[in-house]
Parts: sequence; structure tokens; C-alpha cells
Amino acid sequence: MKIPPVKGTRDFYPPQMNRRNWIIDGWKSASLRNGFEEYDGPIFEHLQMYQIKSGDEIAEQLFSLKDRGGRDLAIRPEITPTLARMVNQQINTLARPIKWFSVPRLCRAERPQKGRLREFFQWNVDVIGVDDVLADAEVIFCAVDYLRQVGLTPDDIVVKISSRKMLAELLIELGLEESQLEPVYAVLDKRAKLPEDVFEKLLAEQVSDGDRREKILSLMEAESVEKISEIVEPDRKAAEAIEEMSRLFEILDRMQIGQFCKFDTSIVRGLAYYTGIVYEIHDKAGRLRAIAGGGRYDNLLKQFGGPDVSATGFGMGDSVLEILLEEKGLIGKEVEQRSIDYFIAFADSKYRDKAIETASKIRLAGMSANFSYKTAGLGKQFKEAAAQNARKVVIIGQEIEAGQLAVKDMAAGQQQTVTAEEFFRKL
Amino acid sequence: MKIPPVKGTRDFYPPQMNRRNWIIDGWKSASLRNGFEEYDGPIFEHLQMYQIKSGDEIAEQLFSLKDRGGRDLAIRPEITPTLARMVNQQINTLARPIKWFSVPRLCRAERPQKGRLREFFQWNVDVIGVDDVLADAEVIFCAVDYLRQVGLTPDDIVVKISSRKMLAELLIELGLEESQLEPVYAVLDKRAKLPEDVFEKLLAEQVSDGDRREKILSLMEAESVEKISEIVEPDRKAAEAIEEMSRLFEILDRMQIGQFCKFDTSIVRGLAYYTGIVYEIHDKAGRLRAIAGGGRYDNLLKQFGGPDVSATGFGMGDSVLEILLEEKGLIGKEVEQRSIDYFIAFADSKYRDKAIETASKIRLAGMSANFSYKTAGLGKQFKEAAAQNARKVVIIGQEIEAGQLAVKDMAAGQQQTVTAEEFFRKL
Repeated sequence: MKIPPVKGTRDFYPPQMNRRNWIIDGWKSASLRNGFEEYDGPIFEHLQMYQIKSGDEIAEQLFSLKDRGGRDLAIRPEITPTLARMVNQQINTLARPIKWFSVPRLCRAERPQKGRLREFFQWNVDVIGVDDVLADAEVIFCAVDYLRQVGLTPDDIVVKISSRKMLAELLIELGLEESQLEPVYAVLDKRAKLPEDVFEKLLAEQVSDGDRREKILSLMEAESVEKISEIVEPDRKAAEAIEEMSRLFEILDRMQIGQFCKFDTSIVRGLAYYTGIVYEIHDKAGRLRAIAGGGRYDNLLKQFGGPDVSATGFGMGDSVLEILLEEKGLIGKEVEQRSIDYFIAFADSKYRDKAIETASKIRLAGMSANFSYKTAGLGKQFKEAAAQNARKVVIIGQEIEAGQLAVKDMAAGQQQTVTAEEFFRKL
Repeated sequence: MKIPPVKGTRDFYPPQMNRRNWIIDGWKSASLRNGFEEYDGPIFEHLQMYQIKSGDEIAEQLFSLKDRGGRDLAIRPEITPTLARMVNQQINTLARPIKWFSVPRLCRAERPQKGRLREFFQWNVDVIGVDDVLADAEVIFCAVDYLRQVGLTPDDIVVKISSRKMLAELLIELGLEESQLEPVYAVLDKRAKLPEDVFEKLLAEQVSDGDRREKILSLMEAESVEKISEIVEPDRKAAEAIEEMSRLFEILDRMQIGQFCKFDTSIVRGLAYYTGIVYEIHDKAGRLRAIAGGGRYDNLLKQFGGPDVSATGFGMGDSVLEILLEEKGLIGKEVEQRSIDYFIAFADSKYRDKAIETASKIRLAGMSANFSYKTAGLGKQFKEAAAQNARKVVIIGQEIEAGQLAVKDMAAGQQQTVTAEEFFRKL
């Protein structure tokens, strides 16, 4: 009986697995060199966890299930609620600042499309317990540090940065009520994805006054802090938020990644829980979905029953990233290719046992080794060795009777006969 | 609102995550040095996948869910069905032998208890397309190679090996029908876990004849191949299966792991799909559940709609392994401990920006670095550095005005003043 895989999921055959490992290992290295520690939670949580403060989009896309006791669970669509839960559980013993990262497997029951899968991996980097915008700069630096290390330049990507706090103050100055902010953010976040008329209709549903709508749209297009002040004269609180933004850019410059970053008020982010700096990393050409997105979420831990502790972080999925790296020629066949240290060939089937023994000894010494399961001729064995990208082939032939074996360096093409004793000693 | 984690799942705080990584990295290294390639599949599959040939125990423990189209899915309780599906899909293009490994996250809706969780990681190692018992030896070697490398000895663990093929032939010689074999295996597999009278009652339900039951029980206790022949005189097919077993032990000796392996007919394995050699790795004291279990499953690919291709492999979970390693003192605090290359301290808050810049440069050079988010005194910063297990602390003080900084080696306790230029050049 033939059963297909579930639509929107991926099978990782060894070449694809090597690509996935290459991406994830890169994420992990960048996290560690930026001083973050790894954590992880369960693949599922109580369903409620995702009904508290996730964006509507995420709540709609849950894979929910029941355990045998009838409790409602859901496969994690994001790891931030788990992070909030875990930090709250140990808030009194964890050393601050909490600089943590994770690479969770996440599932969302959405319609599969380019760069969007029902199952994917997401790099999450967060700093908890630091109010200073320096923490926002740190996580942005960590993301850019990775992207730069794999070969992306300011010509390829841009970090678009805005501030929910700034936007909130300006919208309130424009006369909006506190309660209108969240629905307005949700509409503004969809702007780039919707036809203009649909977007304007949605915005009009939230903001009936035409003058206000126009000012909001002008704010969305402001390309600099100066432009903002021309549209709405910032009051003290708005000015503070703008000042914070300036300090962020100053730190990013000092960290030598200023050329990757751009002030962009159109960045709002869909998730309900953001409270301060927000940003998205996009391909410069703007053809793909966001590569990463993040921001400050100072109220989330409290909403999950914990104390009032500030937090900031980002998530970067593997799907869009992989498409971009492929387009730019930065992830190639060499990433997919396996290789082994030694392939042990035998010139006659009577030496096969000796080949098995030799492979076992090499492995015990910590190097990788393979041999052929078939008793084919040397030519075929060399083909198998080449297919496995073996660096060296050990040939067991009649010289083994005198305690010798031949070792061929596959790249250099040179072959040497050495005593078995010397060979194993040098391993 | 405070929501607890789901019972039977684990939160991996950084120390626990470091332990998990230490175990999984060990599994991966052992797999690669034994010439296996990594693969993975989706976290969920169509529910049917697990109704085909998993053991009853597994089928009862599924976490099932529906997608938005109402299709029945299940979180994977094992990865072997996925392996069969994936290999079948590309059977004509995959180079043989297929030597693959994976470290899937698996979920089973069972009652949590010692060494049994509802979510765990399992190392899977398989060879597909090789009939020769050499392949069985290879996967057993790979398991032992790992266990030996982490420090376990033949005094700690034992690989108990039997053969379903041998047992089947002997049971048929005893007069059992082919159709009785599977239910009898299921009962025999539970023997060690059940009170004697319960076990005997269950066996009597399957085998009504008392003489036959007694002979079956004698077979279960046979400690050597010779003993087998005393209980049931093997016919040609049984003799072949016994011969195969002898060859397996011969290869295991040649691979230098014979001292870890023991012939044990009481090993039957619960899963329905095993067809030949079967084995379990146990702690020698026999106090824990099996550390690993595996065997040959030559019919599974066919049952999943593929061609008639033989296969053999094992699974090793992380829970029991971790308990054993802990008991033996082989996994300790040093595995949990983080460390970083550099901690950048500043003698005055006016040098903080310089510290940020220095940390960024070190990170860009590929080394790990941290600095304090607080503007505390040097003493507190050194405490933070020590808590993070920093190898070196860079101190930015007034010497930086002359282009110099101090570097303290935390292990040696020595401090040196160098020019910033030289410091960065040497990184």
C-alpha cells in the first residue's frame, strides 16, 4: 500500500538533509559567537498557550490535537509562548540577562506556497530582562552576522526598522483610541500583500476619518525621522520613541552593520505582542516574503502569568532564506555532497574479512570508513568509493599476508604501500 | 495567566539542552564515522502510515490530528514507516547500499514513567538493500561504537541477540501454524515485564498444548546454540537460521565487539515487522528498560507499496540512555556548562561603546564574545564573565585612549596589555 507524504511537508533525503544541517549549523554558530545559549521546548503545548497573544493569523493556523485525557493540545506554530512559559517558571533563578536561542521545528496549517510550508524550522534569538535598546541592537546584529557570514551583502538584503511605540504615540496624537491600535496594526501589516483598494477599504473600516487615514498613509511612507516630524509634530512621548530609534541606529553603526539597516515606518509586524522596536529583514529586490522578523515584546511574560520583564527577539525561517541563498548562488552542490575519510577495498573476496576489520579499527580511531557489501572487482569498488567522495582508499590485497596495505589519495591520485602497523599507528 | 507544560514532555533549559546536544552529537558522529548518511522526514504523516505494520503498542499510542481538509494525520511515534516511504519513492535512483541514520523527535501518548516520556529523541540507523548478515553486524557495531565511545564497557551493557527466523522455524517444527507466530511473539516479548502467572496465562491463550508451551519456554532459556538443538532438533531451514547467527557472531568478533554481544533467545521484539536477526541492548544489571532495540525487517518496504527490498536497523532512545550514563557517572556537569571565548569589560561607562564595538569585531572574526548590559563596576563584570565561563576577559580602560587594551587569561590568571591593533590582528 502506497501512502504519500502530507502536503506542505518536506522529506529530507541526505542531500537535502546536508543543506538543512548547513543552514542550522550556521545559525547555531552565529548564536554561540554572539553569546546566546540554546534552549528548546516540547513540540506541543496546551492549546491555550497559542490563544493568549499570538496574532490571529497564527491562531487560525494551529494543528490541534487531544491527548488521551481529552486535553486540548496544539503543535507549536511559534516558540515564543514556550519561551515565555519557560522563563516565567525559573524567573527567580535564571542569571540575567537571559540571552537564549533556539531552532524549533514549527507547524502551521496553512496553504503551502512559495516560501511557506506547513512544517519548517525557525531560528529564534531573544534577550530577556534588558530594557535598553542595546539588546534590540544585539539581536539584529546576530541576525546580520549570520547573513553576512553566508555571503549576503547590503546589496542583497535590508533590515527595515520601525517602532510600534513611536507609531502608537503618533496615532494617538492623530486622535486614535488605545483600543484601535491593535486592529490598525493588523491592517497596516497587510499593506504590502493587498491590492491598494482592498487595503484602503480595510483601513477605512478601522479609521473612518479621511484626513487621519491620509496622515497614517503619509507616516507609512516617511523615509526618515525628519519626515515624521513634518507629518505629525511629535509630543514628548513620541519624541522619546524617536530618540530611542536614533540611538539604535547609532549602535548598529558602531557594530559596523549600519549599511544593512534602514528606517522604514511601513514595518508594523502582524503579531499582537510587539511593544517597541520592530523590524523585518527583506531581500533588497523585494520579491520574496520577509527572511526574518522581530521586535520588542515587553508585556508577554506578564501575559503568561509572570512578572513584568522586558524582552526582544527575532525569528528567521529556513524556507525563504534557502530560496534567497539559492538565487544568489550561495548554497550549492558542495553543501549537499557527502564525504568519508576512508573506503576499504579488497582485491579478492578472501580479504573481505580483513577489510571489515580494517574499517572497524579506523572507525574506532574516530575516522569515517566504509567498505563494499558486494564482492565485486576493485574497479567497481573504486567507483563506489568515488560516489561516496572518499578521501583515501585502502586496498587490501596479497601484500596483507606480509602485513602491508596500499593507500591511495583520491585527490592527489598517489598510491603508497605501508605496513598495516604504521597505518594504524598514524591514524 | 499561567499555563503548565504538557505532562510527559521536557523543557530543555540551556544546561539540559547542552546534555541533549552532547548525546545527539555523539550519535551523529558515530553514524558518520560508520559511513551512514543523515535523513529526516516530517513530524507528522497520514495516520494510515502507522496502522500498517507498527506493533499494537505503538498504534495505541498515537497522537492523531486532522488537517484543515479533515484528513487524518498522526505525529510520528517511530520513523521507520517514513524511512520505508522515502526509500520506496526513490528506489530506482538511490545508490545502494542505502546506509542512513536519523535522530527524529518522536511522540507517543503513553503514561509517562521512568525512562518513558511522551516525547523523546531516538537514534535510528538502517541499512537497506543488503541481505547479508554483515549489514546486521554493521548496525550493531555502530550502536556499540557509540556506547563504547561514551565510556560504557562490557561490564555495563550487553547486546542480546536472537533471530525471529530461527524462532519461527523452531516454532513451526513444534507444530505451530504460521498465523500463530505474530501473536506468540507479542506474548513472548512481554515475558520480562509480566508476572509469571499472567505471562503463562497469556501464552496458554495462544498455545493450548502444554508440552509445546514447555518447549517454547525452554527455547526462551537456551543460552547457546547447542542448547537449542537439545530442545528441538533443527530442520534444514532452522539450521540455516542458526548458521546465519553463528556467522553474525563471527563478524562481531572480527569487529572487536564480540565481548559486548550475547546469544539470547528470549529477545523477540514487540514490533510486528521483524523477520530475521533481532536484538536489544540492555544495562548489564537489567534494572532499566532496553537502551536500544532492532533487527531485520525484510518485508516492510513491500508492505509500504515498494519492491521486495531487505532492510535492517535499530533505534536507541535518549531517555534510558541518559539514565544509564548518569548512573555510571559518564555524563556530568561539564557537559551542561556553557563557555565563551571573550568577555569584554569596561572600566568606565564612557568606554561601553568601545566594548560593544570590540565584541562585534571579535564575533565577526568567528570567536564568541559577550559584554555586560549593565554599567556596573569591573568586579561585577568579572563575576558575570566567570558565570559565563569566559576563557579571556578584555578590559577596556583609559589605555584605550592610547590604542591599548588589557587581556586577562581566566585559567592562568595572567593579564597582559597589548595594542588593540595587535589584538585584532591575532584573532
